[in-house]
Amino acid sequence: MKKSHQSALASLKRKLPGRVFTDPESCFAASLDNLRLSFAPDAVVKVRQASDVGVLLQLANQYKVPVTARGAGSSATGSAVPLRGGWALDLSALDSIRIDAVARIATVGAGAITAELQAQAEALGLFFPPDPSSKKYTTLGGNIACNAGGMRCVKYGVTRDYVLGLEGYLADGSPFKFGLPLKKYVSGLNLRDLLIGSEGTLGIVTQAAIKLLPKPEKRWTGMFAFKSEAAALKAVVALFKQGHNPSILEFLDRQSVGCAEAYTGKTIFPGHSRASILLIELDGTASELRQQRRALLDFMAERAVAQREARTEAAAEKLWQVRRTCSQSMFSLADTKLNEDVVVPLEKQAELIRYTLQLKKEIGLATPTFGHAGDGNLHVHIMYNRSSQVEAARAKAGIYKLMERVVELGGVITGEHGIGLAKIPFMPLQHTKSEIAAMRTVKAALDPKGILNPGKMFDSFEVWEHEPVDVRLPWDHR
Amino acid sequence: MKKSHQSALASLKRKLPGRVFTDPESCFAASLDNLRLSFAPDAVVKVRQASDVGVLLQLANQYKVPVTARGAGSSATGSAVPLRGGWALDLSALDSIRIDAVARIATVGAGAITAELQAQAEALGLFFPPDPSSKKYTTLGGNIACNAGGMRCVKYGVTRDYVLGLEGYLADGSPFKFGLPLKKYVSGLNLRDLLIGSEGTLGIVTQAAIKLLPKPEKRWTGMFAFKSEAAALKAVVALFKQGHNPSILEFLDRQSVGCAEAYTGKTIFPGHSRASILLIELDGTASELRQQRRALLDFMAERAVAQREARTEAAAEKLWQVRRTCSQSMFSLADTKLNEDVVVPLEKQAELIRYTLQLKKEIGLATPTFGHAGDGNLHVHIMYNRSSQVEAARAKAGIYKLMERVVELGGVITGEHGIGLAKIPFMPLQHTKSEIAAMRTVKAALDPKGILNPGKMFDSFEVWEHEPVDVRLPWDHR
Repeated sequence: MKKSHQSALASLKRKLPGRVFTDPESCFAASLDNLRLSFAPDAVVKVRQASDVGVLLQLANQYKVPVTARGAGSSATGSAVPLRGGWALDLSALDSIRIDAVARIATVGAGAITAELQAQAEALGLFFPPDPSSKKYTTLGGNIACNAGGMRCVKYGVTRDYVLGLEGYLADGSPFKFGLPLKKYVSGLNLRDLLIGSEGTLGIVTQAAIKLLPKPEKRWTGMFAFKSEAAALKAVVALFKQGHNPSILEFLDRQSVGCAEAYTGKTIFPGHSRASILLIELDGTASELRQQRRALLDFMAERAVAQREARTEAAAEKLWQVRRTCSQSMFSLADTKLNEDVVVPLEKQAELIRYTLQLKKEIGLATPTFGHAGDGNLHVHIMYNRSSQVEAARAKAGIYKLMERVVELGGVITGEHGIGLAKIPFMPLQHTKSEIAAMRTVKAALDPKGILNPGKMFDSFEVWEHEPVDVRLPWDHR
Repeated sequence: MKKSHQSALASLKRKLPGRVFTDPESCFAASLDNLRLSFAPDAVVKVRQASDVGVLLQLANQYKVPVTARGAGSSATGSAVPLRGGWALDLSALDSIRIDAVARIATVGAGAITAELQAQAEALGLFFPPDPSSKKYTTLGGNIACNAGGMRCVKYGVTRDYVLGLEGYLADGSPFKFGLPLKKYVSGLNLRDLLIGSEGTLGIVTQAAIKLLPKPEKRWTGMFAFKSEAAALKAVVALFKQGHNPSILEFLDRQSVGCAEAYTGKTIFPGHSRASILLIELDGTASELRQQRRALLDFMAERAVAQREARTEAAAEKLWQVRRTCSQSMFSLADTKLNEDVVVPLEKQAELIRYTLQLKKEIGLATPTFGHAGDGNLHVHIMYNRSSQVEAARAKAGIYKLMERVVELGGVITGEHGIGLAKIPFMPLQHTKSEIAAMRTVKAALDPKGILNPGKMFDSFEVWEHEPVDVRLPWDHR
């Protein structure tokens, strides 16, 4: 550790007594996220109140100590990894949730758990739609840092669409409020939204005002089997053309379904093994739902080869279990999963799937794909065995080719995970030099000393050159 | 004109032949917006294609020529006024609208008219909710530049909530695409949203990808009279508490209603002259609407002193005419209207109305107020006669007091108009020095030579020291 950083740490311990940890266990736990690359911080600071963040940033800015904020550490991209050491800023204790049921606005701490906000909102007849798959663990601060999505975006949009106001601290430790718990706000430059998705590189959010919706009266889930991905994705396009408005529209390719069926030893739709599947949720008032369900079943009658519907929550849960099983069962193919979260225009999804099958042949690795077909946001996986250098090299080449094709199709390299470390190599595919220069100049303006999450998003980093650690994280199911 | 600006202009005329106008009529027309303060540009550039903007900005940046973008010029704040001369950049010819009905995404030029997008979307069974009152004239570029709102924000949000991607040019003329016509996109820093509401100070948007919704099947409008503003606003709070979800919820105070009744010679609700009024729109499927309407009428039965409903569009139009008449008829009180667009928390609206009545007494000027009570976004007007120095001084003092009270109540000085020139004096009430410094450093980063709409948002400007011009603009009804 640099001498100046040692003085800074001593000063930090005096100013935030009982909140600064340098023991190996604490440092290891804060050294990684779901990307599982580990870079140890010099210290972990577990804040007790928002103002601790201001105190810490003043010192960090003065002594140029890197600061990397973290919530649950469930980021898929390494955005919560303290790549350059320094201080890991653990915001998980800022977990308050207050709901104003008249204004339909929640005020949440950065450490509040997403599923907890959803539960408290539901108890008041309200609804917070964004639902990343790790919602039982993720924090709202993390959701905001990467502008998290999930399954309901097709009807309800992403995290950004629910953020009204942010409070926190700028790189120099000065407090900010950008936006307020109000539904309209246009005073000054929109730094609130600039912070959303900035992965802790521009400022630290300690509290957010979140817009809630009235909770839909009822939900209905249906699962539909198709002979091919092409047939399933053709149905997706026709569905929007005919004016349907699903709250969830998930797609599973045959590789994914095959994994689940091999894993469980059961065919999901008897007589139709290895089908491609659409999982659809509808929501609304009871009468609206009846109308929507009828229209959807009529629509599917000519298109799907088999179908199943859930009228109760328990029955729906069983259908969703199929989706989760696909995700877990892929590890029967190989021990390592690259999980990309690319987006292409709705009508290009079939072409993307054809490309994943071509890629499968080219690189000799499985490419099971599922995802949010209502947004064009497909999770393309490449499965490989880490111990095989040949497979690793093929997987790496495959990801590059995939990203190139996604951008060619008018898509984006990341729809809900963000850049972090993992997607850095693909930034030049997505953005021109002047676009990246514009982003970097904004970063430099708000963080002139470069202390906030240094090394992320723009610097060069090659995830393949680093060995991931073997660790069990709370959301691991295998 | 500076010599360097003369060379720049000569060069511009060569590079964009037939698009550069320096005649007095063109320069006068581009010298003002709805604030009606006139500052003549050196030239007006009527672009024919997006790339013209890049050509112009390269030159402007090289020669440090101020550039102020404009669409319809309907800004209420002076944001489209070329305060420091230079070039007025007229984007109104970029008026293309293309709608992808499957993806439910419109691609629009910056000059496309808001109402035209709405009409084309409706023809395809789709819906673009933001509806600023000047929507027949305003451009999408202008809506994005000030993050425009309107009446349907209570249920559907503001312009920002519908912007998926922006294309345009940075201050140095390099092209950008921030976001794409995709519903999920989290690659790099979110400069797309930073540009929304930036009033042409950070970059010039030439094209936008706009999210559309399925068009609600039906609409219903009801108008309700209350004995007092307090009773009407108490009903607003109770309405949300009980879970109603109106698509419009407009409030009219007794001063506004009094103006309309004096102007038309008719009592809106016979037997209840000078009532306070709520105008409510519901939307949804036919069955949903029946259910909502019943619940709302039951709710209002104990609260309103009179009511009227519209089951047809023509009947609804008659009810909305009441709202428009209020706006126009205020000029019977005095020749000049200050129209503020403040926002306070929902439950503070009654307190704000009490304050407008206190202010009325204090300054001896009428303070008729109406607005979007579902968002807490109330248009407080102060009416005065411009020729009276006494009244002008009182009006000015009144606005300052109003803004102070709004911020005290946890509100914001502008909910949908933006800062421009008119709200500059109130920025320090809303934002701390470090917040403003953060905004300015971002501005300097993206526009280092300060050519984009200079003098707006941050510089000091006193609107009262400038005489407005007497001009009839397309949206003037009197």
